[in-house]
Amino acid sequence: MADERKKEDGITAKKEENFSEWYIQIISKSEFVDYTSVSGCLAFRPDGYFAWEIIQKATNALLSETGINNVYFPLLIPEKLLNKEKEHIKGFNPEVAWVTQTGNSKLDERLAVRPTSETIMYESYSKWIRSWRDLPLRYNQWNSVVRWEFKHPTPLLRGREFLWNEGHTAFATKEEAENEKDTILKIYLSVLKDYLALPGIMGRKTDSEKFAGAEASYSIEHILPDGAAIQGPIFHLDGQNFSKSFGIKFLNKEGKTEYVYQNTFAISTRELGVMLSVHGDNKGLVIPPKLARIQVIIIPIYNNDAKELVIKSANDLSKKLSAKARVFVDDNDSYSPGWKFHEWELRGVPIRIEIGERDIKADKVVVYRRDTGKKQDVKIGDLTKEIESLLEEIHQNLYNNALKQLKSNIHQVHDYSELKKIITGTGGFAEAPWCGSSKCEEKVKSDTKGKISNMPLDIQEKAKGKKCIVCGEEAKHMANFAKSY
Amino acid sequence: MADERKKEDGITAKKEENFSEWYIQIISKSEFVDYTSVSGCLAFRPDGYFAWEIIQKATNALLSETGINNVYFPLLIPEKLLNKEKEHIKGFNPEVAWVTQTGNSKLDERLAVRPTSETIMYESYSKWIRSWRDLPLRYNQWNSVVRWEFKHPTPLLRGREFLWNEGHTAFATKEEAENEKDTILKIYLSVLKDYLALPGIMGRKTDSEKFAGAEASYSIEHILPDGAAIQGPIFHLDGQNFSKSFGIKFLNKEGKTEYVYQNTFAISTRELGVMLSVHGDNKGLVIPPKLARIQVIIIPIYNNDAKELVIKSANDLSKKLSAKARVFVDDNDSYSPGWKFHEWELRGVPIRIEIGERDIKADKVVVYRRDTGKKQDVKIGDLTKEIESLLEEIHQNLYNNALKQLKSNIHQVHDYSELKKIITGTGGFAEAPWCGSSKCEEKVKSDTKGKISNMPLDIQEKAKGKKCIVCGEEAKHMANFAKSY
Repeated sequence: MADERKKEDGITAKKEENFSEWYIQIISKSEFVDYTSVSGCLAFRPDGYFAWEIIQKATNALLSETGINNVYFPLLIPEKLLNKEKEHIKGFNPEVAWVTQTGNSKLDERLAVRPTSETIMYESYSKWIRSWRDLPLRYNQWNSVVRWEFKHPTPLLRGREFLWNEGHTAFATKEEAENEKDTILKIYLSVLKDYLALPGIMGRKTDSEKFAGAEASYSIEHILPDGAAIQGPIFHLDGQNFSKSFGIKFLNKEGKTEYVYQNTFAISTRELGVMLSVHGDNKGLVIPPKLARIQVIIIPIYNNDAKELVIKSANDLSKKLSAKARVFVDDNDSYSPGWKFHEWELRGVPIRIEIGERDIKADKVVVYRRDTGKKQDVKIGDLTKEIESLLEEIHQNLYNNALKQLKSNIHQVHDYSELKKIITGTGGFAEAPWCGSSKCEEKVKSDTKGKISNMPLDIQEKAKGKKCIVCGEEAKHMANFAKSY
Repeated sequence: MADERKKEDGITAKKEENFSEWYIQIISKSEFVDYTSVSGCLAFRPDGYFAWEIIQKATNALLSETGINNVYFPLLIPEKLLNKEKEHIKGFNPEVAWVTQTGNSKLDERLAVRPTSETIMYESYSKWIRSWRDLPLRYNQWNSVVRWEFKHPTPLLRGREFLWNEGHTAFATKEEAENEKDTILKIYLSVLKDYLALPGIMGRKTDSEKFAGAEASYSIEHILPDGAAIQGPIFHLDGQNFSKSFGIKFLNKEGKTEYVYQNTFAISTRELGVMLSVHGDNKGLVIPPKLARIQVIIIPIYNNDAKELVIKSANDLSKKLSAKARVFVDDNDSYSPGWKFHEWELRGVPIRIEIGERDIKADKVVVYRRDTGKKQDVKIGDLTKEIESLLEEIHQNLYNNALKQLKSNIHQVHDYSELKKIITGTGGFAEAPWCGSSKCEEKVKSDTKGKISNMPLDIQEKAKGKKCIVCGEEAKHMANFAKSY
C-alpha cells in the first residue's frame, strides 16, 4: 500500500558554501521545529521541545543549587510600568507587541506582551523587600517573550517569540551582586558544554551594546559556520538603576534605608539554533546525545521470510537498551532501509543500529555513528556497554570539533586593514586591542558593518602596553570584533 | 534592632462564616501568590510556583508514560485562524486579548493572545498528519493562557491569565479517541488525590455547558467551602469538528482519505485555589506535604546564653532531616518564637519542630502538625522516621477530610423544591434525575441561578425508571445541580 507521507528530498545546499540556505533546509526538513502562519513564531515539535526541556532541567537544577527559587509573573505589562525606567523602555519600545482590545472593548491603558519582565517583577519586589533579612532575593522564571523584530526572522536564531529563563536577583551590597556574575556564567557555560556540546567566548559587552537599563552586560558569544558572531547567554549587572526607578529599598543592619543592587540573566532557545548550526552537516541535523529525544534508532532489515524474526529481535534489543538509552524501532514497512537511514540521519539521531537475519545468526549488529559516519560490528552481548560509551564519545567528539572550529575562528589581528579583512571577508573574531572609545567602536561599525562582540574576560591582560587597533592611542581592552548575526 | 518587615495581622475572617473574605485574607497574607497591577493576573511567589511545578511534573510523567510528547506553539494566533471553527470562536471571542500594534505600527491582522491553542496547533497538524502511520498523534503543551473575563476575578479560582497543560490528540478512529478519556481522567484524578489531597466528581457536562467546539465534555468537579461547585480538570471529545474545519486528513490502511478524531484536555492553576480553599483553616493555609516547598520548619527557642547551642542543634537537625524532607530553620532573632509559629502556620507549612535548651538536654524535640494542631514530643533518634511517616499521615488526613466534606455535600433530592433549597440555600450538589432536555436545564438556571455541574459517571445507572426532577418525564441521566462558582 502506497504511503502518502511526504518524502524528504534531503539537504541539497552545502553548509560550507551557503550556510543560510543550508540552515533553512535542515530546519524545514528535520521535524525539529516548524514554521507557523505567524511570521517569526515557531512550533517546537517533540524533538525540538525535548531538547529545550533537557536544557531547562539542567540549568534549573544548577540555578536551584545556588538557592534560586522559581516564580511566575504575568504575561501582560501595563504601559505605565514599562515606562518607569527610561533606558529600558527606549531599548524595547520599538519591538513591543501591544494588547489594545479585549473582546470588543478598547482598553484604557495598553498592555505590553512581555518583552522581558523587569518592570512587572520589580514592582512586586518593591513590596516584598523590606529588610536586609529579605536579601538576597534570587528569583527566576521560565517563560516566553515576544519582541517584534523587523529584521528578517530566522528559526531559533532570531524570532519574534522565544523561550528563555529570566533570572532576577536583588542584593544588599554591590559586591554580593557582582559575585553572582561568575556563578551564573559558569552555570551557562557548563550547560552549553555538557548538554549542547558547545563552547563559547565569555566576555563583557561594550557600553553601546549592553542591555537597556544595565550598568554592565556580560555574554557568551558563539561563531556561526558563516563566520558571524552570535550572542548566547547573557548576564547583566543592573546596579541600582531599576531599584531607584521602582523604589526597591530595604532597611540595612544599621537601620538605614538603601536601594538594592540587582542582576538579570538569561539563556534562550536561540542556543538550539546555534547547536543545530554548529553540529549539523550536509546530511542534516546532528543532535548531541543528551538532547536527543531518540538516541538510538534501530532499523530492522529483512525480506518477507525473516520479517517476524528480525522485528522481534529488534524489539528485544530495544527493550534491553532502553535502560541506558532512548531507543526507537522503525518497523514501518512502507519504506526501504535506505530511505530510513536517510530520514534518521536527517533528524540527527546519534546512533543507528542495523539488524538483519545474518546479523542475528552471527549474534551481532551493525552500529553507525551519526557524527563520524563510521560503521562497526558489535556483538549483541557487548551492545549495552558499547552504546553507553558511544553516546559519551559522540558528545565529546562534537564538543571537541566545535571547540576546534571556535579556536580556528579567533584571529589575532595586528593592524586595521587586517581587522577589516576578517570582519568583511574571512569571518570569525578579530581579536585586537581597543582604546575603549565609542568613536573607534563606531568607526569599525561604519567601515565594516561589524561590531565588538564582547571583551573576552580571560585575555584582558594582553591589552597592557598595546595600542588601539583603530586610533593608535593606548589600549584599555582586548576586544573581539566580528560581523554580527 | 527593629525590623521593618510587615507584621501579618493573621486571619480575622472565619472560613465557615464568610468564605470569600476568608479566602482573600489567606491569599493576601500567606506569600503563596500576590496581586499585581494587572487586574486578574497574579504573581506566583516561590511557595505557589513550587506547588504548581510539582503538579506539572507529576502530571507530565503520567502523560508521558502513555506516550504523549510535549511541544510548544506560538503565543499569538492570527484572527483568521481563530475564526475557522465557528462554535469555538463564538465561545472565546468575548474574552480574547488582541494585539493590534507592534512598536509604533498597526498590524494588518489582529493577533489573539492564546485563550487556548486548538486553532494554531491544528493548522500544523493538518500539515504533519498524512497517513495512518502518523496516528495517533498525541501532543501536550504547558503554557499560560489569557481569557479576559469580565466577572470579578478571584486569585487562582478565576483569573485573566492562568497556567495549564493543554493536551491535543488525534486518532484514526472514534473508538480510539474515546478510549483516551478514561486514561486521562484517571491521571488527573490521581494527581488530585496523590498530590493536592483533593477528591472530585467525574462526570459528563451537559451540551449547553460543553467546551466551545467539542462534541462532549467531561469534567472533575469540586465543592468550595461555601457550597458552590467549581469545575476542575476537563476532557473534551472533539470528534471531527476541528479536523473538518482545519482539514486534518489521513490516508487510512485501505488508501482512503479520512478526517481524524480529536481530543483536548487540561488541568490548571485553578486547582491550587481549590486546594487552598478546601484545606485551609482560620489560621491560614494548610499545604499538602507533597506540594509544600518547606515541609518542616524548625524554630529554635533560646535565651541569649543558649543561643549558639540551640541554633547549632537546629541546623544539625535540619541537615539530618534534609535527606527525607524539605526543611528550613527560622533563626531570625528579630521575632519571637510565638510570632514565628503564627507566621509559618499562616503559610501552611505541614510540620513545625520546636527545639530549646531543655529539649536538647532531654534528647527530644516538640513536633507540631499543622493539619490537626496536635503537638508531641519526639526523641531525636526517632525524628527522621517520624517526620517521614507524619508527612504521609498528614497527606492522608487531608484527603480523608476533603473526601468527607465532599460526600457530605452530595444531597440526593427527591422533589423540585428540595432541589431549589439546596442550590439557593445549603449549597453542595443536588443529585437528581434529569430528562436531558435543555428546557428543564434552563428552568433550573432561571429559578435558582444554579446549573448542572456534571452528570457523574458512576451513578448513571440510578436514572433507570426515575422521573426528571423538573418536568416529571422519564429521566435519562443523573445530574448534579449546584450553584456554580
